[in-house]
Amino acid sequence: METNRLEAFSDGVVAIIITIMVLELKVPHSPDLNALRPLLPVFLTYLLSFVYVGIYWNNHHHLLRVCHRINGGIMWANLHLLFWLSLFPFVTGWMGENEFQPLPSALYGAVLFMGAIAYYILQNLIVAACGPDSRLAQALGSDWKGKLSPLLYATAIGVSFVSPIVAGGIYIAVALMWFIPDRRLVRVVNERERA
Amino acid sequence: METNRLEAFSDGVVAIIITIMVLELKVPHSPDLNALRPLLPVFLTYLLSFVYVGIYWNNHHHLLRVCHRINGGIMWANLHLLFWLSLFPFVTGWMGENEFQPLPSALYGAVLFMGAIAYYILQNLIVAACGPDSRLAQALGSDWKGKLSPLLYATAIGVSFVSPIVAGGIYIAVALMWFIPDRRLVRVVNERERA
Amino acid sequence: METNRLEAFSDGVVAIIITIMVLELKVPHSPDLNALRPLLPVFLTYLLSFVYVGIYWNNHHHLLRVCHRINGGIMWANLHLLFWLSLFPFVTGWMGENEFQPLPSALYGAVLFMGAIAYYILQNLIVAACGPDSRLAQALGSDWKGKLSPLLYATAIGVSFVSPIVAGGIYIAVALMWFIPDRRLVRVVNERERA
Amino acid sequence: METNRLEAFSDGVVAIIITIMVLELKVPHSPDLNALRPLLPVFLTYLLSFVYVGIYWNNHHHLLRVCHRINGGIMWANLHLLFWLSLFPFVTGWMGENEFQPLPSALYGAVLFMGAIAYYILQNLIVAACGPDSRLAQALGSDWKGKLSPLLYATAIGVSFVSPIVAGGIYIAVALMWFIPDRRLVRVVNERERA
Repeated sequence: METNRLEAFSDGVVAIIITIMVLELKVPHSPDLNALRPLLPVFLTYLLSFVYVGIYWNNHHHLLRVCHRINGGIMWANLHLLFWLSLFPFVTGWMGENEFQPLPSALYGAVLFMGAIAYYILQNLIVAACGPDSRLAQALGSDWKGKLSPLLYATAIGVSFVSPIVAGGIYIAVALMWFIPDRRLVRVVNERERA
Repeated sequence: METNRLEAFSDGVVAIIITIMVLELKVPHSPDLNALRPLLPVFLTYLLSFVYVGIYWNNHHHLLRVCHRINGGIMWANLHLLFWLSLFPFVTGWMGENEFQPLPSALYGAVLFMGAIAYYILQNLIVAACGPDSRLAQALGSDWKGKLSPLLYATAIGVSFVSPIVAGGIYIAVALMWFIPDRRLVRVVNERERA
Repeated sequence: METNRLEAFSDGVVAIIITIMVLELKVPHSPDLNALRPLLPVFLTYLLSFVYVGIYWNNHHHLLRVCHRINGGIMWANLHLLFWLSLFPFVTGWMGENEFQPLPSALYGAVLFMGAIAYYILQNLIVAACGPDSRLAQALGSDWKGKLSPLLYATAIGVSFVSPIVAGGIYIAVALMWFIPDRRLVRVVNERERA
Repeated sequence: METNRLEAFSDGVVAIIITIMVLELKVPHSPDLNALRPLLPVFLTYLLSFVYVGIYWNNHHHLLRVCHRINGGIMWANLHLLFWLSLFPFVTGWMGENEFQPLPSALYGAVLFMGAIAYYILQNLIVAACGPDSRLAQALGSDWKGKLSPLLYATAIGVSFVSPIVAGGIYIAVALMWFIPDRRLVRVVNERERA
């Protein structure tokens, strides 16, 4: 019951973020294929960001499903995460309009990086509130994805100034890492760690 | 309880989609009838899209009312559906601004088609989670509307390049098919199939 | 439980409508008072529309608090109401930009009129679903406000072409009628009718 | 149960306000650092307003968590608060675009001031509905922050015309006052008052 409004508010903000990103897909005036072509990178960046926001929403959902104790710190850590997510439409639009340019690509990575840090803080506060033996702490396990992601984002920020295409590839790879091999891999990794 | 946030988040996204579509109705600067006239096709397209999004919301509501078991696959199938729905404001705006042009009309149909496919995937995953003997599976019956709709959208995409007006007629017809004869017809069809 | 999602979805749409209306208050570029002055009618129109949407939300809230039985007809009647409410940002913006002009004032009244009709249909369907002896039917009483409002809107539409200022006065008067003397007057009127 | 929809609707409006403020961060067309530089004050103002809206949401959450009795007056007091909050995107955008200018800075303070008054009214109505001995009334204590804030906003409005930078410092100081020393200080103050 306690977490109801935190979830509802977060759902609202994330729903709006994921939807207003599409407003960067400006409706062209002419009805032909040429009018559509410059929108292709904007569309692809939108798709990437949609997947990222979807991943955050999924993880946020799992985070709050197990542990229901919240406090002032958790509320602000949650707002802190939402703040960085709220910059997604801006950096998505900038990267979409300026395909394969160093600075927009690096700024995209910087917002991903800050989002990952904010999520990490939120997760730690929730684990602390529920105790290290809680189901949540066990479910997270070594949380290698949560630790690897900011490292990869930081790498991609640097790589952006050499080859924005490779940086883009890293962003796609991290998204796929979260998207594809969820539970099973975590279990395998956990079992290896136990052995 | 499990589906609460999935519903709340979907409601949020759909509510935003249905509302930001109206932003394509740009407020004209002059206060006379001539300023309003070019907005008529935009308004009519908005009306059509509003009905379509309303149909999706209604169906989504019924889909999740019966079966409450969700998993990671269902969450992503739901996001996949929301992704195509989120393109409604864009294709609605493009078709509204360029009335009776082949490409905008075909793209509108393409997003409708992909939305129908995404809904079909989501529905199948939910039925699979709840079992083939569940109330949901029975309520869906032969699901002839769900199977006919993508065929009609595909037809309309092709027809768009010959006669966008006819394609528009098909979009209206499919919307009416979902809107008007809901339960009763399904029952009749079901009884025919049993006989 | 049944009405949960209908309420949540309606709340979402109304929350978005009430908020995107403010986007018509375009941020001026210069920082002086002259830049603010043309925004005054836009601000006042926004205030009026905010009150109207607030009234609809309040009434909608009361409507669904008593009766929880919904059906397909109610869902579409609700969407129908939301459709007309979704045109508020457009007509608000048009009237705000073109103060005291006949056509924007008349169109504002037309959307208010259609919203009142849509609300009336929704209310009747809900009363029908809950029975004429339900608490809702009793609470509504003679519903003189619900019957008077569309008449006043229709009057204001006609008056707009003679004197938009008077039409604006009618819109304000109807809003005040709903806003100020809520329960008590209804009770008085109910008692008079019983006598 | 009673407050569910009031909370949900408020959450929706606040979620939208906090998110559309970011739309003032207009995506620049060129991909270099110079394009980003004029956005810095807009970004900082956005950050300040995000924190303010976050503070309002947190306080609103606590206000309604303890007392669940609402009435028509509370519903309108809540809408009144949301009205002033809905002007945040406008004043934030104006102040962000015109850094260190008297009028935008004063208007920002005026909306903060009106928001504080609206919150004060809402709080008093809720305390009145729950009784002066309720847990809410006790938790609020002397409510020195709630009384000091409007005074500081009023001061900042006047100061804006002399030195907008100092006014900005006051806005930041008030935000920090609410953000940092929440419960503990209140308790200390309460204990001092008892002594």
